[in-house]
Amino acid sequence: VNVVITNPPRVARQTAEALAACGVATVHEARGHGGLMQAVLRPIYSGAKIAGAAVTVSVAPADNWMIHVAVEQCQAGDILVMAPTSPCDTGYFGELLASSLASRGALGLVLEAGCRDVVKLTKMGVPVWSKAVSAQGTVGETLDSVNVPVICDGQLVHPGDLVIADDDGVVVVPRLAAETALDRSRAREDKEAVTRKRLQAGKLGLDIYGKREKLAEKGLVCRAFGAPTA
Amino acid sequence: VNVVITNPPRVARQTAEALAACGVATVHEARGHGGLMQAVLRPIYSGAKIAGAAVTVSVAPADNWMIHVAVEQCQAGDILVMAPTSPCDTGYFGELLASSLASRGALGLVLEAGCRDVVKLTKMGVPVWSKAVSAQGTVGETLDSVNVPVICDGQLVHPGDLVIADDDGVVVVPRLAAETALDRSRAREDKEAVTRKRLQAGKLGLDIYGKREKLAEKGLVCRAFGAPTA
Amino acid sequence: VNVVITNPPRVARQTAEALAACGVATVHEARGHGGLMQAVLRPIYSGAKIAGAAVTVSVAPADNWMIHVAVEQCQAGDILVMAPTSPCDTGYFGELLASSLASRGALGLVLEAGCRDVVKLTKMGVPVWSKAVSAQGTVGETLDSVNVPVICDGQLVHPGDLVIADDDGVVVVPRLAAETALDRSRAREDKEAVTRKRLQAGKLGLDIYGKREKLAEKGLVCRAFGAPTA
Amino acid sequence: VNVVITNPPRVARQTAEALAACGVATVHEARGHGGLMQAVLRPIYSGAKIAGAAVTVSVAPADNWMIHVAVEQCQAGDILVMAPTSPCDTGYFGELLASSLASRGALGLVLEAGCRDVVKLTKMGVPVWSKAVSAQGTVGETLDSVNVPVICDGQLVHPGDLVIADDDGVVVVPRLAAETALDRSRAREDKEAVTRKRLQAGKLGLDIYGKREKLAEKGLVCRAFGAPTA
Amino acid sequence: VNVVITNPPRVARQTAEALAACGVATVHEARGHGGLMQAVLRPIYSGAKIAGAAVTVSVAPADNWMIHVAVEQCQAGDILVMAPTSPCDTGYFGELLASSLASRGALGLVLEAGCRDVVKLTKMGVPVWSKAVSAQGTVGETLDSVNVPVICDGQLVHPGDLVIADDDGVVVVPRLAAETALDRSRAREDKEAVTRKRLQAGKLGLDIYGKREKLAEKGLVCRAFGAPTA
Amino acid sequence: VNVVITNPPRVARQTAEALAACGVATVHEARGHGGLMQAVLRPIYSGAKIAGAAVTVSVAPADNWMIHVAVEQCQAGDILVMAPTSPCDTGYFGELLASSLASRGALGLVLEAGCRDVVKLTKMGVPVWSKAVSAQGTVGETLDSVNVPVICDGQLVHPGDLVIADDDGVVVVPRLAAETALDRSRAREDKEAVTRKRLQAGKLGLDIYGKREKLAEKGLVCRAFGAPTA
Repeated sequence: VNVVITNPPRVARQTAEALAACGVATVHEARGHGGLMQAVLRPIYSGAKIAGAAVTVSVAPADNWMIHVAVEQCQAGDILVMAPTSPCDTGYFGELLASSLASRGALGLVLEAGCRDVVKLTKMGVPVWSKAVSAQGTVGETLDSVNVPVICDGQLVHPGDLVIADDDGVVVVPRLAAETALDRSRAREDKEAVTRKRLQAGKLGLDIYGKREKLAEKGLVCRAFGAPTA
Repeated sequence: VNVVITNPPRVARQTAEALAACGVATVHEARGHGGLMQAVLRPIYSGAKIAGAAVTVSVAPADNWMIHVAVEQCQAGDILVMAPTSPCDTGYFGELLASSLASRGALGLVLEAGCRDVVKLTKMGVPVWSKAVSAQGTVGETLDSVNVPVICDGQLVHPGDLVIADDDGVVVVPRLAAETALDRSRAREDKEAVTRKRLQAGKLGLDIYGKREKLAEKGLVCRAFGAPTA
Repeated sequence: VNVVITNPPRVARQTAEALAACGVATVHEARGHGGLMQAVLRPIYSGAKIAGAAVTVSVAPADNWMIHVAVEQCQAGDILVMAPTSPCDTGYFGELLASSLASRGALGLVLEAGCRDVVKLTKMGVPVWSKAVSAQGTVGETLDSVNVPVICDGQLVHPGDLVIADDDGVVVVPRLAAETALDRSRAREDKEAVTRKRLQAGKLGLDIYGKREKLAEKGLVCRAFGAPTA
Repeated sequence: VNVVITNPPRVARQTAEALAACGVATVHEARGHGGLMQAVLRPIYSGAKIAGAAVTVSVAPADNWMIHVAVEQCQAGDILVMAPTSPCDTGYFGELLASSLASRGALGLVLEAGCRDVVKLTKMGVPVWSKAVSAQGTVGETLDSVNVPVICDGQLVHPGDLVIADDDGVVVVPRLAAETALDRSRAREDKEAVTRKRLQAGKLGLDIYGKREKLAEKGLVCRAFGAPTA
Repeated sequence: VNVVITNPPRVARQTAEALAACGVATVHEARGHGGLMQAVLRPIYSGAKIAGAAVTVSVAPADNWMIHVAVEQCQAGDILVMAPTSPCDTGYFGELLASSLASRGALGLVLEAGCRDVVKLTKMGVPVWSKAVSAQGTVGETLDSVNVPVICDGQLVHPGDLVIADDDGVVVVPRLAAETALDRSRAREDKEAVTRKRLQAGKLGLDIYGKREKLAEKGLVCRAFGAPTA
Repeated sequence: VNVVITNPPRVARQTAEALAACGVATVHEARGHGGLMQAVLRPIYSGAKIAGAAVTVSVAPADNWMIHVAVEQCQAGDILVMAPTSPCDTGYFGELLASSLASRGALGLVLEAGCRDVVKLTKMGVPVWSKAVSAQGTVGETLDSVNVPVICDGQLVHPGDLVIADDDGVVVVPRLAAETALDRSRAREDKEAVTRKRLQAGKLGLDIYGKREKLAEKGLVCRAFGAPTA
């Protein structure tokens, strides 16, 4: 049956906000390389960086009815995550839905499908990560579900999970793992700040990470250009 | 035989200009979802928005001879629409051809192939919707035709048809349907302006479009998170 | 065996700088249509334009160990060119490696794989031409080689070769052909400057390039719209 | 409005049958390189070779209602040609529809979308040229039209046009051009039979087609391996 | 942490065998259109049709170490399901691993990556559904997990879940839903047998499914070719 | 300048024949994972397995003139390797050229482009590895070169190099490395024969390759389903 789940527990807002600052690449690393969508989704404009609780929606191909249903479930700080039940580049989302989403305080949209009105969305500051830009219209005939687990661009997203999106892509963190992810991301940032300074000063990664010794051990040969190969 | 058709009847310029303001997504909807290219073509820079009469050109793969022939057929307000006879990403069009096109008052280029000199074209303000950015050069050996019907990115374009292109893509409107398309697009804009205000005020699409009742009718279940499924 | 070749002869720096100004499209034409990568690589931001000597690195899929080794071989004016041994979109390169690359005076990176931290790289002004934007992390387990010939996006690159990259793509010029390429590119620019003026003045390419006569010879028919086909 | 056009004039059946024997590659050449679909569609099994009159159907994405409508318009010797209004790989067509199509004497299906039950269709001998194999189901909610012009894989198809499909792809010939296409295809076959024998006997294409002289004229250099470049 | 889960509960073998006979398309429909992989995976040879319990394995890109670990967890009737942690077409699986898999009675392999030795696998009768055919070798350096939930080609697979694969693709059924899926698939087959006979007898789907009345209701117009549009 | 190099030194025929029996996957492994094309090229029919000396040809997009020139350079046991100068799926090669190639004793064709007449080629037993099947015709206007180094599907091929092609893909071995590749491939086959028997007898790869110990060392945890995570 098709269902709308109301009021799922959500990741805490301050945790989400703190993780937005860390960014997708850092959080993905801090999580041990997990949760990253497959790089098929791209932002419609550069520089957006959001993090919030997922409101999930599963939709029929080229049918945007359930997005309207999902918008009603959105609260301030949420990110709408949409997955069609079969691959589809149709333009499900445009300026009017963005107005509605923004009026509820939602932060943006992640969808494995197409998006339209990209200039207007850019002006409105409603960021979207989509698989395509397409003005192709939708119908409104087929039911599906809201706030059920969905798979979006290769990642499983539960309602209330933390979603972080910036120019590097989109990463998902299970709700209960968000605090730990924040701690580890901050620890990583601190460590990277030290590393960055050393690299900027000309020190090499091979030495900083202690990877020079293993090179010889594994048999890497170093030879001046033109020298005989012996 | 290969042919150049001169002076095909063109969509009226004021109609084209009025429709440019409406944009691709609106016109596509106003036309009942018809005429949209398949989202393979992307603008080389953001923010361009043009509408004009198509001058069409069919070209051999990697051969730009006929573009030179087509430029001669261009007038102020025209948009050149180019389709290769087999799939090809070669860079057919660059700064010099753009200079020539601009000197005739043409507005831009839509081509199911590659484009180069994109920084220069951006500075010149000659917008191009292309399938690829490629510096790959062409030859000039094989004849083809100008101002014959072509299929570009999945849409049939007749010379003189109205072409509208912006960041959402490219839509084609048959010449004789342009006036009606303008009327319907304006009606749609008026209606959307009302809807937009209501959405911004927090009213939901489900209620505005009267789609809430059908949800229950079709069997959608609403359930609080954690509630028993009965 | 895996090897690092040190100090390969490099294309002269002033030659590289002069060719950067010519740009990819011009150099590719001046070289007789050779050396262009296949348009799969795209710049992470618009407007960058670099030319320098290639430091090449072959890497295992999703393994960035050898980039650290390659950075040590980079000098001021170099461009790092990276090719994985099998197709891979993983995000090999980000802000920390960019800091290291920049500290050595290298100009940028060309890689047939993924790149991350694109906003930071844009702010730092470290241009990258990549196949994908991906935050996906790498491991550091498998050796490969530095400054050996690699094939990147369909072109063979030797260490020390001239690499030119801008918004139109990436072109490779063998080290010993760089001087000639510069001469021919300048000659081409001079010729194009004249052509550009004529085109801007409304003269047509058909006449400038003397291609009008051949049209009739090859059998092109010119016919007014609606005229009988005879 | 959505419309079903009944009884369009069809290409003569004996013409179609004669052209099936010629095959796609020959007819495409005989037509001067026109009418070929873009090689996105592939047969679900090898060795099928059909030619017949097109019954065309435009469908909404992931909605197969109109195929049922189109089947009713099919007669013996027809080929159903289906194009979705936006790109879609859903499995529109399977064994049950194939049973229905076969019961009317139709020869097969060409669709720019997905197909399922491929093993059963192979056993039934109902050939299909599709963009994808997919079991993904469809809905039946949205009207569209039958026997209107459609664009399928880059080619315009009118109802009644001749469609030829084999392992090389699909080619479309306008109804009124079919007789001429047959004459030219047969002439081409006769000529190729002569050429084939000469080639099999070791004579070279360069000599048969008289293209050897132009090589030197255009400046081709012939040099033994290792000889100085002069 | 990386983990191997031993002896997860598995779908009953006789249920799996019964569902193999139903095939992917029928089970997918019987499940209400759920569980179907995205059609990116294709069988390496035609005609294979298997169903069994999933043994799942997550692997690093281009690293096949964990497949060896996973094979040890396989029992008679199992199907190995492999997902790389980032997109990768490398040839993870060939004849030697197939020998090992077969010696344990496993039925085949589903992997969102590449496969090699396809001729030998065909002769051995070890069916594989893969994203690519590639001889590209792997390394064995990085740990990952066995019998944890994985996402393969867009579907979530838990260890012990039912996997069905044939020429139409791959469908996943949660372990506890397998019995119901079997009942519904059989009911569907019975119903389709009746429908098939009626279709073969020339009855139309429009009538069988009662969809003719709605056509007029929704406004479909029927018109003889050449008749005035009124 | 465009050039035809005649009589390049070729890999010895008996070496090639011996390596054909080893197959692409074994030779690729024996070479340390080098020389494999990128899996974009697929055989037009299953089961072909050839190895021979490369005759290389570079061609303009959609222009097959130089293939005719290259055929003249082919001898018994050669394999023609064709690379277009820019990406192109056009059907360069069909039955007539195949007749000519076969009359010279050449074994087959590897081309990063399209091929047609696939049913006829299959009947003739002329195997082709191509990027696409397309009936799209070519022109014959532009010169290029024969027996110069070309890059085909990501690999550098010199004339006279050993090319091996089977259902797993295409691998290139430099002429002077062919003998060593044969020795190593045979050694690998001997070793694999022993391994195969052990695997068939139920022994596991983890034990045969001694990779079980490292699992625990790297921290892999083994846990029965449902057991507490501690």
